This record gives sequence, structure tokens and C-alpha cells, in this order.
Amino acid sequence: MAEKKVEAITSMEEDFAQWYTDVVVKADLTGYTSVKGFMVLKPAGYAIWELIQKQLDERFKATGVENVYLPLLIPEGLLQKEKDHVEGFAPEVAWVTHGGLNELPEKLCVRPTSETLFCDFYQKDITSYRDLPKVYNQWCSVVRWEKETRPFLRSREFLWQEGHTAHATAEEAEERTIQMLNVYADFCEQVLAIPVIKGQKTEKEKFAGAVATYTIEALMHDGKALQSGTSHNFGDGFARAFGVQYTDKNNTLQYVHQTSWGMTTRLIGAVIMVHGDDNGLKLPPKVAPVQVMIVPIQQKKEGVLEKAEELRLKLSSVARVKVDATDKSPGFKFAECEMRGIPLRVEVGPRDIENNQCVVVRRDTGEKLTVALDDLQDTVAGLLDTIQSDMLEKARQHRDANTHTAKNWDEFKDIIENKQGFIKAMWCGETECEENIKAETGATTRCMPFEQEHIADTCVCCGKPAKKMVYFGRAY
Amino acid sequence: MAEKKVEAITSMEEDFAQWYTDVVVKADLTGYTSVKGFMVLKPAGYAIWELIQKQLDERFKATGVENVYLPLLIPEGLLQKEKDHVEGFAPEVAWVTHGGLNELPEKLCVRPTSETLFCDFYQKDITSYRDLPKVYNQWCSVVRWEKETRPFLRSREFLWQEGHTAHATAEEAEERTIQMLNVYADFCEQVLAIPVIKGQKTEKEKFAGAVATYTIEALMHDGKALQSGTSHNFGDGFARAFGVQYTDKNNTLQYVHQTSWGMTTRLIGAVIMVHGDDNGLKLPPKVAPVQVMIVPIQQKKEGVLEKAEELRLKLSSVARVKVDATDKSPGFKFAECEMRGIPLRVEVGPRDIENNQCVVVRRDTGEKLTVALDDLQDTVAGLLDTIQSDMLEKARQHRDANTHTAKNWDEFKDIIENKQGFIKAMWCGETECEENIKAETGATTRCMPFEQEHIADTCVCCGKPAKKMVYFGRAY
Repeated sequence: MAEKKVEAITSMEEDFAQWYTDVVVKADLTGYTSVKGFMVLKPAGYAIWELIQKQLDERFKATGVENVYLPLLIPEGLLQKEKDHVEGFAPEVAWVTHGGLNELPEKLCVRPTSETLFCDFYQKDITSYRDLPKVYNQWCSVVRWEKETRPFLRSREFLWQEGHTAHATAEEAEERTIQMLNVYADFCEQVLAIPVIKGQKTEKEKFAGAVATYTIEALMHDGKALQSGTSHNFGDGFARAFGVQYTDKNNTLQYVHQTSWGMTTRLIGAVIMVHGDDNGLKLPPKVAPVQVMIVPIQQKKEGVLEKAEELRLKLSSVARVKVDATDKSPGFKFAECEMRGIPLRVEVGPRDIENNQCVVVRRDTGEKLTVALDDLQDTVAGLLDTIQSDMLEKARQHRDANTHTAKNWDEFKDIIENKQGFIKAMWCGETECEENIKAETGATTRCMPFEQEHIADTCVCCGKPAKKMVYFGRAY
Repeated sequence: MAEKKVEAITSMEEDFAQWYTDVVVKADLTGYTSVKGFMVLKPAGYAIWELIQKQLDERFKATGVENVYLPLLIPEGLLQKEKDHVEGFAPEVAWVTHGGLNELPEKLCVRPTSETLFCDFYQKDITSYRDLPKVYNQWCSVVRWEKETRPFLRSREFLWQEGHTAHATAEEAEERTIQMLNVYADFCEQVLAIPVIKGQKTEKEKFAGAVATYTIEALMHDGKALQSGTSHNFGDGFARAFGVQYTDKNNTLQYVHQTSWGMTTRLIGAVIMVHGDDNGLKLPPKVAPVQVMIVPIQQKKEGVLEKAEELRLKLSSVARVKVDATDKSPGFKFAECEMRGIPLRVEVGPRDIENNQCVVVRRDTGEKLTVALDDLQDTVAGLLDTIQSDMLEKARQHRDANTHTAKNWDEFKDIIENKQGFIKAMWCGETECEENIKAETGATTRCMPFEQEHIADTCVCCGKPAKKMVYFGRAY
């Protein structure tokens, strides 16, 4: 029977971009069709998204979020109602001009995001203070006509959730905006094992139509930043543009205050680039579709496959577990487990069975343990927890080791040229300085972190009095 | 405080179509935007879909189905590769002609269904018999440019799942086609409490590009049929059109055999029209987002709200339960529970608390029971099971009472004119007779049921020798 070895993937050090593409392909996460710029999420990739969805949705619902579904298509007139918003999105939307055999009287865009639709809906659905707050979310796909695409990070269509809320007061809207950012940050740390910086986007970087955009920023293995989730406070800007009003308790007409917040399949790209290594993907147990792969050794010998199946049953109450009983060699199976990022591999062969034990191998550290079969269930349950927290800790150490402080422009340039990662520096608050820094170094303002530090008195770029400490970085 | 009574809904007997619309609106299932022909699924409607999704997805996965996600847009060239398929769908698709600021070199349609995309993907992804079978499914929305729309039953966009499989042999494909039809039928009966007729569509009614289409047909309260799920066997037709081939064990190139199967948000329309009554929706417990609503009586009296909350906690381990502590009157709350189809209502007031009891009211029968608080958990759990099976039984009785047998054309016409429901009759197998019957009576062939009966020797329409017993009916 023909058997090819798992092909080597490009080393991270050699070419990080190629390493990323190799991992995506060889871990079987995405596939191709003839639709340019669009990706297929294959079972191994989609199953990660399902686990993300489930755990994020539970956290949403615990804060009172209700799911809804709004139309895929947006009439041009609706998209144009909020001036900043249409300027931000019109250049990158796909337009439907014909329905059935007829040209449409008004063209419709495939939603790039649904603020305008939610406003249109809320305008019809909200009349009194009794109808507030509305805390709605939808899981769907959106289309943005990107020129260059990369699996998960940037594609013409991606899956996401978009929350859209309407509140009676500005305070409530701000509170919800921050609350959801905190849900995102907690989710990234506890589920994806990715530590994030929470902060506010600058005027230049905020969302089209927002009063304030908050973000969580993560650091990838190559030292580049990835914006991993955003939460926007719209104030009453959209409400005024769309006439979304309610009658308050004093029978006075008021505008609602709105928010929106979203996370996308981009998170899968973050998981790959934060945790992966030269052997492939490393999945945090909480988003690993298979947490334990049992590999039978000398599986044709009597009793081996039966024992493997017995262990699978035993472990199925504490983990998502499978047996690889294919006719591939054990070495090939080991490599495949590593490529796919399965957190634990259990090896069991005739000699193990004789000794009533098996070998457990951690994907994150490579550590091998000999475990008595009687202890297997507890050991596996414990190890999955340990791996989850160790992966977060390792990512945090990497992030901290690659976060630098620049007091002045010389230090800033030195870091950009000789190091990688986040740069913390002071900023005067002027867009011009952001643009200059970007033009000279490629680094952008990632956020004005909630946790401010005083690094210097003056802006790292222009030397004028500083207003904020900012995280800078090159970003995806 | 202003308080309006729940507005009456049109009676079923008076105007079934208006009754349907009233229930959809007053049970708060759907909402409106300015996007013509598209619907909004509001929280109460979407939550039903989430329960359908969850329970159907579990059944899929138990048969080895894996979820994936394929692109939203299909290049015109791909859609045209299978002749029958493009003829069936081209007249009703929406076309994207511009991406960003540019006209596209090739126009793309918004998927009306994804056979062509799966073929394109499988053509790239399948090479050897080792890659088979592929048993993939996706949850997504599709767009079909319908002229007349009705919530859930027919809209320009709807949510669904579409399964697409590829197999080595014709037998395996046929087996999977029937297997999924059985999953659908079982799901309708066990979860939606809707009995269905399983059978095969005629040549005239089968899916564009299929060798055989199987269907489950349900009977609505007004005696009209609703096609509730279909499963198609494509043979190797699509594989030949798209060149989807694999190398078998003898190293010979073979075409794969394919299937597809789908169920949609239309099922929510079926639930409304099978179970609902003049007081509104009736939800089978398994798809009721709220299964038990606790209504406190004289809730301002000391201890009432506390007791209601205590009961909620107690019941939360056996049911999805809420307390309605709003300032509406109990009568208004009762009517709202009925409108929304909540299976059980629990009333608890000061006198009940004194007697350590409460009143439990069934939505399906209106029956009231006085229940000791100590027994409440068991009683509620038991009642939810009973309601689920009673609703199925009631729907079955209605279906059977409205299924008639016509031996000849006079009997057929008499039933059409004076009764409602399914008509079982013999058919010669000719499309011409189907067309004649439709032209004269409005009834179409719903299916050739798997359970055949011998009603007569000759076709009910033309009098030639009969080949099959067919279910006829007017349909949505």
C-alpha cells in the first residue's frame, strides 16, 4: 500500500508567511474552489469554528444577548444613510444588480457588516422605553472585496458574529461596549489561550461611523500584531441618521444609543500564529475538535485494537477522543497528530497492555509520560487543563518578552530595526504623527491601552506634550 | 400605566392565510426591514431555529456527517456546467456584477444551493478511494428570487442546511439518500411532532439534475401539503459534468456518485400550521425556547416573586423556564404565553403559597392541574414528555382523518370539491396526467410513497393501467 510521509513544512524562522500557509494546508483546515479570494472551511477548520461559536455564544447569552438573523442584502439607499459609514465600506462591497431575469430598480450590496440593517429594523421595532434595551447578535458571513487574501486573516468572505444593541442612554451604551470587549478578552485568554491588550483605537483607526472603537490586540509568534475583536460605541449618530427613536417615561421622543461588536474566523489564524510550531498546529484543548488521539501500536496483534477502543470509551467522558485505526504507520500517525495540533496522543501496544499502562504525549511540550491504565482518565483530564493554562502562560511570556518601551524616536527606530513585537510609547494625539510613524516604520497605533503607563512627557514622534501611552506594532 | 390587551388574531376558519400571518407577527417570530422579500428572524423565531439546528445537527453527526463552509458566491461558469441544474435555478438567482469599484470579469450568483460548488471542491479534493466517502454538510443561507413571499414558507433568502456527499458506488449513494430521508422523517416526528409521508418525487417534480428525489410531506391544518425536506440521488451526473473522479483499488479512474439533502426554516412554518390554534402558536416542547413560563399572581404581595424565582430555579434542571415579572396583568401574561406557544404555564399566588401548591396549565389542551410544590419538578418533566407525544398523536389523527382514497376520477373530483387533505390514488406514470390533474384541480403529486397500496388497477385520470399509488394534494 502506497504511503507517503507527511511532507515537511517550511520552518517559521525561514519564512513565517510560508510556514503559515503550509500549516493551514497540511492541517487540512481550508480548501480551494474556483471562486477567487473565497475560502472553503474544511471539517478540521470548521470544527474549530463550531467550538469557538459554542463557547462564545454561551458567554453572550449569559450577558442577556439574544440571537436574530437579518437579511444578507442591503439596498444602496440604506447603506448611504450614515455618511462616514458608507465612505468606509462602499469601496469594498459586492453589488447585486440583477434578481432573477430582471435588473433591480435599486442595487443591493452583500452585507459587509449590518449596522444599517439593524438601524432600519430598530427604527420599525422600537417605539417605547419598554422596548429597550435591544441586545441582539447574529452569526453569519460577510463579504468585503479584498484585493489580497490569506486564509482566515483576510478573505473576500468570512464568518463572524456581529452584535448590535440599542439603549436608552449614552451611559448604558458605553457600559455594553466595554462589557463585550471584556467578554472578548476573557474568551481569548480562557478559551484560545491568547493574552490580549485591551484599549481604545485612535480617531484614525476607529470604525466608520463610531464615536469610539475598543479593541483587543494579540501578538503573533513573528512579532506582528493581530486585531482580534472590536467593540464600537456609536452614540446616537446612527440613530439620528436612521430616525431610531423611542418615547421615554415622560412621553418625550428620544434617540437611542447604539453599539456593535464582532469577532471572526480570523481568530483561527490567531490560534495558528500564536501557538503553532515547525511541526504544525497546536490547539488549545478548549478549541481542539479532537483532544486525544489514541494510536494503537502493532495494531494487528490480538487485543490491541480492542484495548484502544476500550480506552476511547473510557476517555470519552472527559475528552473528545478518537482512535486512529487506519493502516498508516505509527510514525506517520504521530506526525499527523502533531500537524493537526491534537493536544494529547495516547500510544498503546502489546507490551503496554501487558504492563497495564500506556504512553501519553503532550503536543505542547513533547513530554512523554508512562501512565497506568487505571489512572488514565484522571491523568488525561488533568493534563488537558494543564496544557490549556500552560499554553496561555507561554503565549504571555512570549508577548511580554516582545513588548518594548521607547522613550524617544531613536529608541523607537532601534526597536523597529532590531527587534520585533509591541512598542509602548507616548503620543501627542495627532493623526499626523501616527501617519508619520507608519510611513517611516510600517508600525501603526494598535490601541491606547486601558492600563496607561507614564513612559515620557513628550510624544515619541514630534516631541510635543504627550497625551496617551500607545501600543504600536506592525500588524496583519 | 397604559396596557393594551393582546389583540385578537383572525380565526383559522375565517381566513387561514390571515391567521398564519397574524400568528407569525403576534408571536413575535419575524420582523421587517426595507429589504423587499427578505425577512428578519426575531429572537423568538431564531431561538426555534437554534433548537432545530442543534437537534438536527446531533442526528447528522451520529451518522458521520462533518460540517464545512463553502463560498456564498458561484461564478456563472460553474453554475452552467450541469445542464438541468442551471435550467432549474438560473431564472431565480441574484447576480453580483460588481466587486468594490470594479465590474467583475465574470458575474457571480448568490448561491441558491451549492451542488456546483461542492462538485468544484470535490473535484480538487478527491483523488483516491481513500478519500471517500465525503459526507459533508453546511448551515447557511441561500437566495432565490421569489416573486411572492410569505414568512418562513417562501422568502428571497432562507436559512437551511445542505448536505452534499460523494461515494465510491451507486449503491452507497442511494443508501445515504434514503438514510438522510429517514433522519428527516424521524426528526419531524420526534422533535417537531409532525407526522410525515415518505416517498419519491415524480420525474416532473424532482430536483434539477437529480436521478431521484425523495421527500417527506406533511399535512397542514388547512388540508394543504407542505414539502418538509428532500433528499436527492444524483448518480454520477454531476461527477461527469464536473470531472469528479477517484482512483479505485485497482488503480482505475472512476466517477463518484453524489447526493444532497436539505431542510430549511420552512419547518417553522410547518410547526405553526400543524399545531397552532386561534389563540396562537403551540410549540412542541422540544423546540420551545421557553418551555415553562411562571406567572406570579398578585406579585406585589410579600413572598410571591421570591417563590416564583425559587420555582424557576427548581425547574431549571428539567426545563427551559422563565418568570414573567413584568408589570402586565396576569390575564395579559396568560394570553401572551398562549400566543407564543409556551407549552406550560405555572401560576403561583399568595393562596397557592399558603397551600404549598401551584396551578399548571397545558397550552396544547388548556387543561389545568393543581400541583403540590414538592411534586412540581416531576410533574413538569412528565407533562413536557406527554405534551410532546400528545401533539404528535393529535397531528397524526388530523392527518389520517384528512387522507382520502379515490378509486376513479369522479371520486377524486368529489374529494377535491368537498373535502380537504391528501388524496391517495393510482397513476399511470405519465407526466401528462399529472399536468391534467393539476390544471383541473390544483392538486399536484406530492410523492409516490414507499408504502404502496393497491387502490385500483387503472390510473385515476386517464384510465390506463396504473403503475404507482401516489399522494396528491394542494400544496404550499
